[in-house]
Amino acid sequence: MSKKILIIGGVAGGASAAARARRLDEQAEIIMFERGSFVSFANCGLPYHIGGDIEDRSKLILQTPESFLARFNVDVRVRHEVLTINKEQKTVTVNNRLDGSEYTESYDFLLLSPGAGPIVPPIPGIDNPITHSLRNIPDMDRILDTIKTNSVEHATVVGGGFIGLEMMEAFHQRGIKTTLLELADQVMAPVDREIAGFAHAEIRSHGIDLRLGQALSAVEYVPETHIASFDSGESTNHQHIYGHLNLSLSNGESLKTDILIMAIGVRPETTLASAAGLKIGELGGIWTKPTMQTSDPFIYAVGDAIEETDFVTGKQTIVPLAGPANRQGRMAANNMFGRQETYQGTQGTAICKIFDLAVGATGKNEKQLKREGIEFEKVYVHTASHASYYPGSEIVSFKLLFDPQTGKILGAQAAGKDGVDKRIDIMAVAQRAGMTVEQLQHLELTYAPPYGSAKDVINQAAFVACNIIKGDAMPIHYDEIDNLSDQQILLDVRNPDELQNEGYIAGAINIPVDELRQRMGELPKDKEIVIYCQVGLRGNVAYRQLVNNGYTAYNLIGGYRTYKFSKI
Amino acid sequence: MSKKILIIGGVAGGASAAARARRLDEQAEIIMFERGSFVSFANCGLPYHIGGDIEDRSKLILQTPESFLARFNVDVRVRHEVLTINKEQKTVTVNNRLDGSEYTESYDFLLLSPGAGPIVPPIPGIDNPITHSLRNIPDMDRILDTIKTNSVEHATVVGGGFIGLEMMEAFHQRGIKTTLLELADQVMAPVDREIAGFAHAEIRSHGIDLRLGQALSAVEYVPETHIASFDSGESTNHQHIYGHLNLSLSNGESLKTDILIMAIGVRPETTLASAAGLKIGELGGIWTKPTMQTSDPFIYAVGDAIEETDFVTGKQTIVPLAGPANRQGRMAANNMFGRQETYQGTQGTAICKIFDLAVGATGKNEKQLKREGIEFEKVYVHTASHASYYPGSEIVSFKLLFDPQTGKILGAQAAGKDGVDKRIDIMAVAQRAGMTVEQLQHLELTYAPPYGSAKDVINQAAFVACNIIKGDAMPIHYDEIDNLSDQQILLDVRNPDELQNEGYIAGAINIPVDELRQRMGELPKDKEIVIYCQVGLRGNVAYRQLVNNGYTAYNLIGGYRTYKFSKI
Repeated sequence: MSKKILIIGGVAGGASAAARARRLDEQAEIIMFERGSFVSFANCGLPYHIGGDIEDRSKLILQTPESFLARFNVDVRVRHEVLTINKEQKTVTVNNRLDGSEYTESYDFLLLSPGAGPIVPPIPGIDNPITHSLRNIPDMDRILDTIKTNSVEHATVVGGGFIGLEMMEAFHQRGIKTTLLELADQVMAPVDREIAGFAHAEIRSHGIDLRLGQALSAVEYVPETHIASFDSGESTNHQHIYGHLNLSLSNGESLKTDILIMAIGVRPETTLASAAGLKIGELGGIWTKPTMQTSDPFIYAVGDAIEETDFVTGKQTIVPLAGPANRQGRMAANNMFGRQETYQGTQGTAICKIFDLAVGATGKNEKQLKREGIEFEKVYVHTASHASYYPGSEIVSFKLLFDPQTGKILGAQAAGKDGVDKRIDIMAVAQRAGMTVEQLQHLELTYAPPYGSAKDVINQAAFVACNIIKGDAMPIHYDEIDNLSDQQILLDVRNPDELQNEGYIAGAINIPVDELRQRMGELPKDKEIVIYCQVGLRGNVAYRQLVNNGYTAYNLIGGYRTYKFSKI
Repeated sequence: MSKKILIIGGVAGGASAAARARRLDEQAEIIMFERGSFVSFANCGLPYHIGGDIEDRSKLILQTPESFLARFNVDVRVRHEVLTINKEQKTVTVNNRLDGSEYTESYDFLLLSPGAGPIVPPIPGIDNPITHSLRNIPDMDRILDTIKTNSVEHATVVGGGFIGLEMMEAFHQRGIKTTLLELADQVMAPVDREIAGFAHAEIRSHGIDLRLGQALSAVEYVPETHIASFDSGESTNHQHIYGHLNLSLSNGESLKTDILIMAIGVRPETTLASAAGLKIGELGGIWTKPTMQTSDPFIYAVGDAIEETDFVTGKQTIVPLAGPANRQGRMAANNMFGRQETYQGTQGTAICKIFDLAVGATGKNEKQLKREGIEFEKVYVHTASHASYYPGSEIVSFKLLFDPQTGKILGAQAAGKDGVDKRIDIMAVAQRAGMTVEQLQHLELTYAPPYGSAKDVINQAAFVACNIIKGDAMPIHYDEIDNLSDQQILLDVRNPDELQNEGYIAGAINIPVDELRQRMGELPKDKEIVIYCQVGLRGNVAYRQLVNNGYTAYNLIGGYRTYKFSKI
């Protein structure tokens, strides 16, 4: 007998599951319920349509109910909301929002792909017509409508995550002055503070009013009614309410703005699952097994609404990203048809374009490792994205986190204007394969001057990591430099013009690396020499010279560049 | 007692070894002999200076003897040629080409990094002043000199490998009409014929006269002496010999050209090693152990001159590439100082820019697998480099070779205008880590619309491969399509306008995939249905429909696009 599969939610995971189910079984009955009006739309593309990079709105609609029916024989019911699940009866009740009717539908298997909704905190005054979140196409349309009808000259975005950063850029591209408020001391939480410094510099260089460590505490909406002026040729179409907001910030300052975007995060949509008695995890997502089954074996769940296993820690995690959602949907369909596939955990690989900069990460960051009590060491390199003598190379600022005993890769982060996605992908593969930093040394990556270097960023980071593991290098990190003791002296081995142009750390003495052999006698042997250069390479050369001559020394990993950007 | 290390050859491997040796030991005596005038120059950058992308010649000089001395205390002796090695005495004799003197130098360890020289076949007339190879800076200067003094209007490049392709592009960028002769039926030997088709299309679209399957059989040099015309202000500096060449080709045609570049390949420089009685491998390179030691434990060899282990087959191979050379140099130095590092084999990861196209590969290609008798299956996908709704995405044409039993990755190839280096790097890491195509499905790669897709090229290729392994898809390949039997009919499931615009395979019947459920009755059940679409995706949807309805079917992997480019 053919199977009947119901799918709740028609984006990413739900759409993937429907297509895969049909490919596996031509006879199955597949019904997809979508509360909204759109299935399979490009939710990651919404900010880029607002900003103008994607001009054609219709490009965001990847599939329609009609195309799904024609290609996959899936009965797509938009504006149909599933109200309840009866898991004993294996039925759902559905509200047809088009006509208000209700009906029951039975299933052999049910897939939950409800996604996550934007968190809107209970800030006084936040419920007003020019404050928006961005989750779907109607949200996008409302934002565009406000921009147009309210003649927006100043926008405020709350939250420095992916959507917040993308909306900041979208407003800027439209010529709107923009403020970005972020409660934490950094944007882009997947990376650590010092890597976020590159994002902060990029954001500020575009004239964005970036305010870190500040929350929105209250909103006052000042409406102004525009009555159509028939004399100047306006019709009643021109009649609307607009206005501005007076924002109160946690530091006591206030801000006048014409549109407010709340993008502080998302929360799994678990209402339906919870009411049906499905297990909800400790983090608040729908609990799932590696098969994508919920606590009920006939109900699967995928995507932003679920808790899954963290690849590195093995603990439960919630990672609302499109890649995992799509692969989970495919896997859930496979398992409904008797395959035995298991989800292999989520690394949280992520990337964000911030103007000309890319910032990306995979695995755990330092903040998470500290929170989990996992021992780690870290290295930084700042290396050209491709042969520096070939035009167009940019510095990739790269952070590698690893187990200092085993060399196991714990995480990686990068920021730069070229080649960041590639390096994070390399690390995502290496980590998933269980590689160590020792093995990263041997990676044989594409090299031609337009694409890479004979020793790639990743090879170089691995060399530094292995030097530390083998005792060939004694690291010191940017966050220790401001707290040196009297027994330590700071040695800057760059050329004097670099100190002038790039800045330097107060109190450092300067001996260029190429003069160090001759001038080593200027350094006291009874103190520890803390060496730094621009990125750490010459520092290592100097370190080896000093240590091989009987000095005690440390090399600032990642050099002055890491130190400098950690403070931006 | 401090060690004395001699290094023969001051580029790539030699330079890496010298720098690493110094970092390991401040006291060691390190002497580097370089026959030429330059150490540590950017040999991969030479064609780009000729073409003009790298304007400043001095950018190609990465280190000088002076800079090496200052930073690494290495005694660099340029224009010093090592004539003989006495491995019993552990000495070398050296010819100082500056003054013609000879002397002996002893060593504790010797490193051979002599590189490879261009193969110049004994073609009649090839020894003439306007025929060049390109290996080093003097070669580059000579080519530039010929371009200038000979008012070159037409250039001929023999050999469609990296240097040949780069020189072709360099001439084209200078506005010189260019012919590229290649004896094989494809350029860029690391990829297979059908992937090379993308390169052929790109080359021809730029007006290059690409001639495949043709050899150069004879050269006639027609010199013309230019005598300075003092009346028109010329001095004796203007007096030179120039001329043109009449080339005879293997197909009987002839060609007049103003400069000829021979770039048919390189041969390991083994004269010195061979004369010293070091073991030479069967392929003609200096035989090495994984420690980078030659048959003499005190003599190491690295780079283009050696034979090393192939990562995939475990057999000896010669891969003259910069990445392995650099890492081998570092490793040889480590082992001279008592480390126990072993080289992990070479995958042959390579990439070449051909105008706007990148063509790359890692691991074994199909030609090599067939030659080695290694069983394989292959899949092709043609997928957007990033979300296709975001501007700037380009198709990545990707080929994946794998073991059909175990799913082990055997090799990968790609061509496209964006994101090729990234996909080949991902595959190089996955292959080195021993991943299977099953594991590739789970890769969690960076995704945001400007950088990737929720299901990346690699995920999609892995899905297709796993479908084949699990029996969910029955593949047919582009090279079988022209030989279908009477019992097979060809079904094109694209839309009619695609057949018109893109072309189609003669004899195919056309039923668009979205009409197939309704029109399935038009297909005979007693024949095998060979399905194709543009890239293979819709073909798979159609395949599943037909098979689930009792038909016997095949899906053309990679679709019409693979078939079409295999013939270009």
